[in-house]
Amino acid sequence: MDYLKSLQCKTLAKGRELAFTLARKTIAAIQTDPQVRKELRPKYAQDTTQLIASSQVVAIEFQTIAMANNYWRYEN
Amino acid sequence: MDYLKSLQCKTLAKGRELAFTLARKTIAAIQTDPQVRKELRPKYAQDTTQLIASSQVVAIEFQTIAMANNYWRYEN
Amino acid sequence: MDYLKSLQCKTLAKGRELAFTLARKTIAAIQTDPQVRKELRPKYAQDTTQLIASSQVVAIEFQTIAMANNYWRYEN
Amino acid sequence: MDYLKSLQCKTLAKGRELAFTLARKTIAAIQTDPQVRKELRPKYAQDTTQLIASSQVVAIEFQTIAMANNYWRYEN
Amino acid sequence: MDYLKSLQCKTLAKGRELAFTLARKTIAAIQTDPQVRKELRPKYAQDTTQLIASSQVVAIEFQTIAMANNYWRYEN
Amino acid sequence: MDYLKSLQCKTLAKGRELAFTLARKTIAAIQTDPQVRKELRPKYAQDTTQLIASSQVVAIEFQTIAMANNYWRYEN
Repeated sequence: MDYLKSLQCKTLAKGRELAFTLARKTIAAIQTDPQVRKELRPKYAQDTTQLIASSQVVAIEFQTIAMANNYWRYEN
Repeated sequence: MDYLKSLQCKTLAKGRELAFTLARKTIAAIQTDPQVRKELRPKYAQDTTQLIASSQVVAIEFQTIAMANNYWRYEN
Repeated sequence: MDYLKSLQCKTLAKGRELAFTLARKTIAAIQTDPQVRKELRPKYAQDTTQLIASSQVVAIEFQTIAMANNYWRYEN
Repeated sequence: MDYLKSLQCKTLAKGRELAFTLARKTIAAIQTDPQVRKELRPKYAQDTTQLIASSQVVAIEFQTIAMANNYWRYEN
Repeated sequence: MDYLKSLQCKTLAKGRELAFTLARKTIAAIQTDPQVRKELRPKYAQDTTQLIASSQVVAIEFQTIAMANNYWRYEN
Repeated sequence: MDYLKSLQCKTLAKGRELAFTLARKTIAAIQTDPQVRKELRPKYAQDTTQLIASSQVVAIEFQTIAMANNYWRYEN
């Protein structure tokens, strides 16, 4: 799977995207039934508590990715 | 999108601002309907549990941004 | 705003104070109505779950500030 | 046990796998009865709040593993 | 206040103690009424969810303290 | 107490064990009555939300221990 090839991302935007992907793929790895995931999605997307909790997972994954890329310090 | 151009921020205040933006944009990326987000907002802004949880997301995003800027150690 | 001028704090005590300020200011930035905040405060200050969650936000902000100050290793 | 031999993983994909294993083994170490775990599993796999919380544990374990492997910076 | 003098601790045991103190003092700084704190204590000490959440705060504060002391690597 | 002597662990397995011990001892330090702890245990060991939250505490303690041991990079 492509998202598991490297933490190195050319840009911050790509890094952010990878953080989302990792977070989403973890859910998919635990709840493996795509039908169930599809049913669950609208529920949590309207529940602010869960939206905030999801944001936290993204923030943690992103922290790892940002470290891996030296915060894109030399990019620009 | 501008907030995805760089983690480098001239000042601490700008870095803090970016932390808020990242946190907010994550929510928007999961709940893509602006109308739903608008409806959800008053609810969570009056629920201290959710306010505290949101603060935690901001704190984690900020930690990453502060690292990226060497904590603005040489700024002043 | 003064608390957004620098993460550098002369003493550990000042650093701890800044962690509290950052945490509090995040809440104020999300719930901008001071009247609502005033009403919310007594509620969460008597709810141990929320007190503990608030402590966690302070602990994360403090971790960032402590890093920024090299843990005040050479202070004494 | 094999997963407790080393944090060094040849690839990012293996590192991600180890993060899942560590998270799962912690649960198993606290709830030692495999029958109970089997009964609990369907419940939490349909509860988005718990799926998100699990993702967070995986994200934290992964952060440690990624650090241990220098983010697989020199792998490709 | 003594616990705000330094993060440097001679031993791991003292560092652990400081983590507890910091966590407890944060609660006391938010809920300033000692009588209310006294009343709240038995409630959360019998609620495993809150005990676990408190442990997490201690773990985060300890992480900061352990970093500050270079993990007591050269102590023994 | 032995677990408070050093964060240095010969092996990853021992480090993982220490993470569990630290997490458990924090609970014991807050809820000091062993009889109450004994009564609380079955309850949380069957509640997946609490099992996941406990796993998170272990993950954070382990992150600190892994750092302290340079991730056992040179062990094998």
